[in-house]
Order: sequence, then C-alpha cells, then structure tokens
Amino acid sequence: MTAADDPAFLAALRRICGDGAVLTDPEELGVYAFDGTATLRQPPACVVLPERVEQVAQVAALASRHGVPVVTRGSGTGLAGGSVPSEGSLVVCLVKLDRILEVDAANLAIVVEPGVLTQRVADEAAAAGLFYPPDPGSIKISTIGGNVANNSGGLRGLKYGVTRDYVMALQVVLADGTVLETGTRCVKDVAGFSLRDLFIGSEGSLGIITRITLKLIPAPAARATLLGLFDRMTDAAETISAVIRARIIPCTLEFLDRTTVECVEGYARIGLPTDVEAVTLMEVDGHPGEVEEQAARVEEIARGQGAREVRRAASEAEAAQLAGARRTAFSALARRAPTVILEDVTVPRSELARMVAEIQRVARDHGVTIGTFGHMGDGNLHPTFLADERDAAAMERVEGAMREVFQAAVDMGGTITGEHGVGLAKKPFLPDAVGAVPLAAMRRLKAAFDPAGILNPGKIFD
Amino acid sequence: MTAADDPAFLAALRRICGDGAVLTDPEELGVYAFDGTATLRQPPACVVLPERVEQVAQVAALASRHGVPVVTRGSGTGLAGGSVPSEGSLVVCLVKLDRILEVDAANLAIVVEPGVLTQRVADEAAAAGLFYPPDPGSIKISTIGGNVANNSGGLRGLKYGVTRDYVMALQVVLADGTVLETGTRCVKDVAGFSLRDLFIGSEGSLGIITRITLKLIPAPAARATLLGLFDRMTDAAETISAVIRARIIPCTLEFLDRTTVECVEGYARIGLPTDVEAVTLMEVDGHPGEVEEQAARVEEIARGQGAREVRRAASEAEAAQLAGARRTAFSALARRAPTVILEDVTVPRSELARMVAEIQRVARDHGVTIGTFGHMGDGNLHPTFLADERDAAAMERVEGAMREVFQAAVDMGGTITGEHGVGLAKKPFLPDAVGAVPLAAMRRLKAAFDPAGILNPGKIFD
Repeated sequence: MTAADDPAFLAALRRICGDGAVLTDPEELGVYAFDGTATLRQPPACVVLPERVEQVAQVAALASRHGVPVVTRGSGTGLAGGSVPSEGSLVVCLVKLDRILEVDAANLAIVVEPGVLTQRVADEAAAAGLFYPPDPGSIKISTIGGNVANNSGGLRGLKYGVTRDYVMALQVVLADGTVLETGTRCVKDVAGFSLRDLFIGSEGSLGIITRITLKLIPAPAARATLLGLFDRMTDAAETISAVIRARIIPCTLEFLDRTTVECVEGYARIGLPTDVEAVTLMEVDGHPGEVEEQAARVEEIARGQGAREVRRAASEAEAAQLAGARRTAFSALARRAPTVILEDVTVPRSELARMVAEIQRVARDHGVTIGTFGHMGDGNLHPTFLADERDAAAMERVEGAMREVFQAAVDMGGTITGEHGVGLAKKPFLPDAVGAVPLAAMRRLKAAFDPAGILNPGKIFD
Repeated sequence: MTAADDPAFLAALRRICGDGAVLTDPEELGVYAFDGTATLRQPPACVVLPERVEQVAQVAALASRHGVPVVTRGSGTGLAGGSVPSEGSLVVCLVKLDRILEVDAANLAIVVEPGVLTQRVADEAAAAGLFYPPDPGSIKISTIGGNVANNSGGLRGLKYGVTRDYVMALQVVLADGTVLETGTRCVKDVAGFSLRDLFIGSEGSLGIITRITLKLIPAPAARATLLGLFDRMTDAAETISAVIRARIIPCTLEFLDRTTVECVEGYARIGLPTDVEAVTLMEVDGHPGEVEEQAARVEEIARGQGAREVRRAASEAEAAQLAGARRTAFSALARRAPTVILEDVTVPRSELARMVAEIQRVARDHGVTIGTFGHMGDGNLHPTFLADERDAAAMERVEGAMREVFQAAVDMGGTITGEHGVGLAKKPFLPDAVGAVPLAAMRRLKAAFDPAGILNPGKIFD
C-alpha cells in the first residue's frame, strides 16, 4: 500500500477538500493518534476533514486508486481502538458533516449527518416532543455516525434496545467511492438483503456512513428514579431478576460494585455509604400511573431481597444526582490509576451475579484492581482495570486477568463486547468468542465489500 | 446442475433422512409445487423432510456436492413465490423440526426450531406471561422459520416492530453444510459483523435457518379496540396522522377500503355499512390507565376528523369480532375472483392517503378491481388485485396496473414489499426499487455465502 503522505496523493486530496481540510503537520496529527482506548497510539500519515458526501466519495475513490488505508472517525470516543489509525493511513474525520437534515415528526424520523453529536440528536428529538432512546455513556461527545458504526448501546438497552433498533436508512460510501443508499423511511421494508443491518456495527470496515435516518418514538410522560443499597451483590442481582419476573422492564437498571462506589463517593461526594457491596440505579418510565405502580413494586422487591436502603428521588434534580452517581463511574475510576482499561463483557442476565463473582475472583487471583459497574438489566458489565502501563509486570497480570474474564463471559453464553466493538483491542479474542465458522463468514463479507482491504485495515480481524 | 431425481443422489438422501422422509411420487410432489402466491406453480424433483439439524447439514453438503438446487420451505404461506421450487430442485421442508427447545423467562427468550408454527411461539410466550408481538396475517399456519427468513411483519409493526426486532440468535446451515451459530442470549452483542441480521430476511438464499432464539417482552396488561367508519379516505388517514401527532402509538392501526369492506361484509356479516370509504381498526394497549386515556383520545380525534361513527368494543368478544373484520379481509376478497393477487407496497405513513388515491386511480385507468387494506399505522398497504389468470388480456391489465402501483410507492419514498419479500414475484421490480448499487452489493453477498448458487436459485434476483 502507498502511504497517505505521498505528495501526489496529498495534492489530489487538497483539490477535493481544500487545503485547509487536509492536515499533515505532526502536531496536528498527534490529536488523531488515539481514541478513548488506553495504551493504543499511532499517528496517521494524514487527516482529511470533508464537509460533504461528494468529497467523502471522491476521497474514498482516490484512496482506493492509490491503495491508501482509510480510517474513519468522529469524536474518537471509542473504547476498543476502532478509530486508532494504522501506519501510513489517511484518517477521514467526519465531524464536519454535522447537519440535522430533517426532523420528520409525521413519520417519527430524523435524518442526520454522521458528525452530529448523539446528544444533539436526542435534543432535536426532544424539541419535537419525541425521544431518541440510545444513550451511550459518551452521549455528550460521541458522534451519531460512530454510534451507528459501532451499534452503540447505553443505559436504556433492556427496555429500548440499542442503536440498531433505531436505524431506518443509511447512505454509505463504499471502499471504491460508490455511494450506496439502503433502507427507507418505512417501518417495514423487506426488498432484498438488509444491507443497512450489515453496515450497522461494521466499525468502518465495510463502508463510510455519510447519512443516517433514525426512528424516533414518543417520549415517556413520566419517570421515577430509585437507588438501592445492598450488602450483597447476589441480593442486588436477585432484585433485578425478581423485577423482571414481576414483568416490569425498567428503562435503566444499573449497578456499581464496592470498588466503584468507593471511587464515585471519593470523587462526587453524594453521600453513598462506601461499605455496601452494590448500588443499583433503577428507573422506570412511561404513563404516570404505570410509573407510580412500578416504582412502588420495584422498591418493595428490593427491600424484600434484602436491600439495606432504597432511596427514591423526590425531584428531577435528585433523580439527576442519583443517575449522576452512575454516570461518573468511569471518570471516578479513571482518577485512581494512570492506565484505566474499561472492559465490556456481557452475559445473559441470569448469569450476572455469577459473572460479577467471577470477576472478583479473577481480580484476587491475579492481584489486579477491577472496579465493575454497568448495565445490570441487560447483562452488560464494564469491569474496569486500574493499572499502569509503565509497569510491564503489572500489565501482564492485567492481560491474564482480562483473558480469563472474557473466557468466563463466553462460557456463560455471553460475549466479549456488548457495546464497544472489537476494533484493535478485542481482535485477539474474537476467534474464540464467535468461533471459526462465523469468523470465516465475516472475512468473506469483508472481502465482498472491501476486496483491497483499504477500510480500517487490521481491525476486527487480521 | 444435477437434478434432484438423480438415483445416486436420492439413495444418499434416503441414507441421511430415512426412506419415509424422501418424497418423489409426482402426486406427493404436487403439494410442494406452490406456496400462497397466485399463478406460480412448479413441482420439485424431490422433497425431503429432515427431523434434525444434523440431517439438514448433511443434506446441504450432499446437494452441494451434486450441484442440486435447494429450496427451503415451511408451511408455504409465502406471498411472493419465495418457496416455489425451481426446476429439478430438492425441496427441504422443515416442518418436522418443530420443537420448542426452551422458554427462558429469566432472560426473556424462547428457543425454537424453524418448523414451529408462529401461533405456537405466541402461545408458549403467553403461557409464561410473556408476549411475542410479530403477528403476520398467516400466524396460525406460518412457521417461525419462514417468518425469520422473510422478516415477517404483521398488524403490530408500528408499535412493536417486525420479526427482526425479536431475533437474538440463529443457527444456520450454510450452502456447503457447515453449521453456523450467530448471536447470543444477550440484549447487547457487537462482537463482529451481525451475521444474524444478514440471514434475517434473506429468503433462504444465504443459508437454511435451523434454530432460532427469540426475544420476548412482558404482555401488556390492557387493550382497547375501536372501529372508525369514515366517508372519506383522507379523513381516515388524517385521523392516523393526528393520533401520531398526539404522541399515541397504537398497537394496531388497520384500514379497509370500500371494496374490501363490501367483500368483508358480504362474507362475515358483522354489520358494517357498505357505503363507507374507509373502516379503521384502532387498538391501544399497555397499562390500564394509559389505555383508557388513549382510547378516549383516539375516539375524540377520529370524531374530530369527521368519522361517521366510532365503535368501541365493550368486551373481549366484541373486540375479537371487530378485529376479525380486518383478519378476514384476504379471505373475503379471495372469494370474489378466481385469481387473487395480494400485494404489499409500503410508503412512509405521511404518504398513505396519497398512495391509496393513486391505487384507486390506477384501478380505474386500467379497468381492474383492486381492494386495498392493510397496516395504516406503518404505511404497509395490501392492494389486492381481483383477476382471472385464464383471461390473458385481463392479466396483462393487472400487470400494467401493478407496475404503476410499485412505481408510485417507490416514488413516494416507499418500497415494493413491506413484509412479503421479493421471491419470484417481485424479482422484476427489485432493480428499480433499490437501485443498481445496492443490487450489486446484494449479489456480492449471495456470491460470498453461496458461490455455487444452489440455495433458492433464481429468487430475489437472477
């Protein structure tokens, strides 16, 4: 492959996007050398910031002709190294494709460019009295294009699903610069294979997403927020199971383990006791009557399962404070160590208590510190490894612990990544997680859409 | 390609599945010569009825070695000829893979074999206090495997989505007999490209689905059923739009046009006035308090938009009777002509009144009778052509009318098929509907999964 710093290539790139849109200064490139993933760092040879889909298409065609590897990115909030550049690559940064193209309230849809921040999508929907449910932890700074490319999840997965469940149509620039449109603004559309669903979650490896039509739903009229404090993790997990058995699907069912609670309280000082084994954040939403009944029932269930205390937010402000405790978990943990690796295993909900116990065992056995928090309702856990990348021996222990955690998740019928993607970080673990036959099928898909392998090379699988 | 009546091939087939599971008698084959689609008919060379996935895998491997075309089917209720055999083909009929493998209430999931009837899935879910929402018109006789292969819709699409939204994991036998597993029982799973979503809606062209894990949700506690009678179609359509504007998402929003109402009343005699232009069936479900409020609001909106009458079911029995009027639409129309072609265009909801008017214009211009009914809430219309295949001139007019109807749907941002699939019947219309670039991408997918083209050859595209 040619590198993206080839003069002829750069000149052509500047003709397409304008001089100001092409970055080659090492200092500027440094900003694009990493994403939200710890320890991964590689500057690209060049960065381009197109403003229109026509430019993206011409850039892809150019890169394809020159055999230059292309790494697409938005805000770079990814946690699996999916947008960390490969050597000699061109980074196509889509933050300037940031227009809200249409809010179509009649069809409950919104059409946006990929560089729009996820929070802005949510805000535009709210302004129309509608609701865009997916809320990844990085919602305030992540781009919607990145969310679609990674099929991002968030706190509302159990009740409202993930990004995939809201994508109606996509415009995608293929590796050779061809522009493909897939999907319609119809709730039902089965005309041929679902290319749309193939691009969702493909992590920039099959095409560059340049326009997104999202489904919106009416906003729930009411919400109640409860915090449960538990002396035993199994009681917290049993509470979740009992809530589901009661046929209640909360919109949020989060938890923090003791290590995380300690960090959060040290950071945010919101009055959490630091001697509890688990804190659960439980939110129900919907019709006011339903919310009232469900909140009362959830509180009763939590107490019945041995919660030391259940706090119910009396106001929106208090709800925001309780939810904030969960939202600050990553930042709070991040203050505690130079290198913080946020992991993303998922198990069927029924295996959750077992999985948390297994993570705690692994931490003890390997002598590493792991704070675990996450989405208890959908079995998506974020064991967060506190480490120091300058300490090789310690990092080796972290590696070993991580491998055991992934294996445990897979053994319980789970997955190595619930919402972060594979990228570079999970690549070594994918073959064992999905098996040889699916892996071979994924390679065939990659070859079918990107035969020269210029899109995000070396990601997902080698 | 070898034909499936080759003696060596048949002998091997009998060794795999047993003598009784292999049909070659022309009379028996006749039963498998068609599905629910009018006018399409082609007997296969042979039918096999495997009982276990291992047999399906061996059959696929055998067919692959012999180059025998394989057409997979369940109950054969499809309406696009997707399971009509090709010449010399082997029909793999999966109705004997009909076990409910697991109801996993803790993880809100059910694991079934493809030959299980959709109604049985719904019943098993209901027995566990849970709900499987997709309800294609053929729910009582269609198999769940066919539903997944066609991404079937139904009456609840607007609020609850379609089959795709409930598929968590699949086991699929590939063209060469390899068994592939994709997906987990996790709400969130982004480990690699979503092969699961690729197989959903692939109409037997990419693999043979042999096991399905479906997501279930809690059953809504209450439901209200209303019937609206309208003198003008635009008033009915405006009612639907106004309901959505009021941020109410009914679980069912169906309509029948005048032609259909006449047929239904002639057939079922439930006291519908036959001089109305549109009858709408409107159901809301959820928490009892919410249902009460929404039903009152829907009734008020319908009256405000000029409904001649709004009937609200006072009992479950009356609700069933009103809903039954809609459910009998196809049967009622089918009695009126020797050849009944049930079509399946879909438009964004906002275009619905325009699309119905366009269908009526086309019917007048071409001198054909079209009864239209369908899912008003999700823009999915079933214009039903009453014809006689023995009358060549009339059939030509039907063809011409159909082409115009499809084109109108596509021009309004819609699709040629909302829930029936492409199969044989829609194949000629797919290129114009999706465009050359997506079509080429679909061909690459087909080649990647079925390079020899033995799975359902000649379907979707040539």
